[in-house]
Amino acid sequence: MTDGTMAACIIDDTPRATIVPKPRRRAGEVLIRVTLAGICNTDLEIVRGYVPGFNGIPGHEFVGVVEEADDSRLVGKRVTAEINCACGQCEYCRAGLGRHCPTRTVIGIINRDGCFAEYMAVPQENVVEIPDTISAPQAVLIEPTAAALEILDQVTIGKTMNVLLLGYGKLGMLIAHTLITTGCTLTIVGKHPRKSRSCGNIPAHYVPADDFVDGQFDVVVEATGNPAVLERAIANTKPRGTLVLKSTYAGNPPVNLSPIVVNEITLVGSRCGRFEAALAFMQNHYTPVEPLIHKTFPLTDAVQAFTEAAKPGALKVLLKNE
Amino acid sequence: MTDGTMAACIIDDTPRATIVPKPRRRAGEVLIRVTLAGICNTDLEIVRGYVPGFNGIPGHEFVGVVEEADDSRLVGKRVTAEINCACGQCEYCRAGLGRHCPTRTVIGIINRDGCFAEYMAVPQENVVEIPDTISAPQAVLIEPTAAALEILDQVTIGKTMNVLLLGYGKLGMLIAHTLITTGCTLTIVGKHPRKSRSCGNIPAHYVPADDFVDGQFDVVVEATGNPAVLERAIANTKPRGTLVLKSTYAGNPPVNLSPIVVNEITLVGSRCGRFEAALAFMQNHYTPVEPLIHKTFPLTDAVQAFTEAAKPGALKVLLKNE
Repeated sequence: MTDGTMAACIIDDTPRATIVPKPRRRAGEVLIRVTLAGICNTDLEIVRGYVPGFNGIPGHEFVGVVEEADDSRLVGKRVTAEINCACGQCEYCRAGLGRHCPTRTVIGIINRDGCFAEYMAVPQENVVEIPDTISAPQAVLIEPTAAALEILDQVTIGKTMNVLLLGYGKLGMLIAHTLITTGCTLTIVGKHPRKSRSCGNIPAHYVPADDFVDGQFDVVVEATGNPAVLERAIANTKPRGTLVLKSTYAGNPPVNLSPIVVNEITLVGSRCGRFEAALAFMQNHYTPVEPLIHKTFPLTDAVQAFTEAAKPGALKVLLKNE
Repeated sequence: MTDGTMAACIIDDTPRATIVPKPRRRAGEVLIRVTLAGICNTDLEIVRGYVPGFNGIPGHEFVGVVEEADDSRLVGKRVTAEINCACGQCEYCRAGLGRHCPTRTVIGIINRDGCFAEYMAVPQENVVEIPDTISAPQAVLIEPTAAALEILDQVTIGKTMNVLLLGYGKLGMLIAHTLITTGCTLTIVGKHPRKSRSCGNIPAHYVPADDFVDGQFDVVVEATGNPAVLERAIANTKPRGTLVLKSTYAGNPPVNLSPIVVNEITLVGSRCGRFEAALAFMQNHYTPVEPLIHKTFPLTDAVQAFTEAAKPGALKVLLKNE
């Protein structure tokens, strides 16, 4: 649209697709025309109202083209953007951990409009240019790939180690792709054998979700989002082993934490990761994203897209904007 | 007694002080005449029936004199003993982590009689000789001092770090003594200002238990045993910081684990530690144990001693056997 408005998905009381004013970029920001965006579980939690205080345009996985920027060399470039917009001054920012800046905004999650719109404005320093060798769906998946790779930034995993991945959904499949590059012996517990087959290029032991995996592992990654799985995850972590918690749970699930103390387990919370690392990973490792794509909707059908993405077993739902 | 029996505290249905056969040592074991023993929170949990499956003589903090041993040089020596009796063969034992041996027995806790008795038999390899410079109450406290020091084996704590200790009971006070040797800035939240004064030789900020400590810490140690404190402990841990869990909780408390994921907190379960390290610590650092001693009972009054030890605010209760 050229009248200063744009199509967008808005969360106020309930999510709706509507027409809103096109954003203006401030100095230091770039204006991006979004071409493809992905719906992740955090978006579904926002849509369901589980993320209190968010009003505006959700969405944080995207690829688009720069329309305006202070630096004219960026105009016309295909880009995505690191989602944490940090102050650049605090102890976390100075330590390279802007992702934990206490005054940060987060694209589509905390106090900043996201990518489920025709246009968005983001800080120029967050912009990551996408090389031609990376497809649009791959570019959209850089953010969750960074979140998957974050595990390897936090925990040392080597060839002699037995690793258990619980959860084989959108994020779980990307985690599997990153874990397997360590040379570890990987066991994956997942709900959907169809997916296991479609990602069968990952050499792992595949176990159906309802089967209890006997034995204990050096590292367990919990990525189901299901709090009922947590005790199983703790039980499958060997003494002095590491349990990586990738899931946030709605509510306060009751948990028996005693085995964590008795077996001196280290539980590592893991969230966002480095975009450059994720881009390099995609360039250097074969990461087929097609098996991850469930369905693509036009942006104007965003509400239907959310419904589809929330169906059990649904993988990545994309929003297209052309 | 010389008739082949001895006084002991027995747990079958309820705890009782009684007369039982004196144990016979097997080959590889030493027979110890216990002279002083300490009651810890694990003993209280056993007495209350919170540790399913334990029947026999509880107690694992003690000092005594060797009466019989394969190695005659040990006879007459004043000793205590590492409480985990390990197989010596498995991957944990080979890695120096017999404390996690899956087939271990544990003195007074798992499948092995403990020290609330006139005599006990323990594997010779578990015996730690006590030098004359260490008093009997100090020797009794080597086990909890090892548990306190375990934190420093697991987590690197340095001079630039802000550390918060939640809980200032029997174990908490020993933890404070070990933490302060790192040169860290220590804040202690505890219930009993009397104790704070009595251990006032530890340079720390003392905060009453009901006051919320504002701010976030590099390392938080949870040693209250109160599950209601856990969310506070998580909130006081800074992003990418470490929360050491020293407490086990009865039941399955509801916990909001999301901040652990969002702030990428590392939660470290911590249990038993190395006895040699604890003995060396006591020899090299002034560790006044007197403020920790609440009351001493004769072994035959063990049941009263448990009642006293369970009173709110009670510190270390000892059982004497002369």
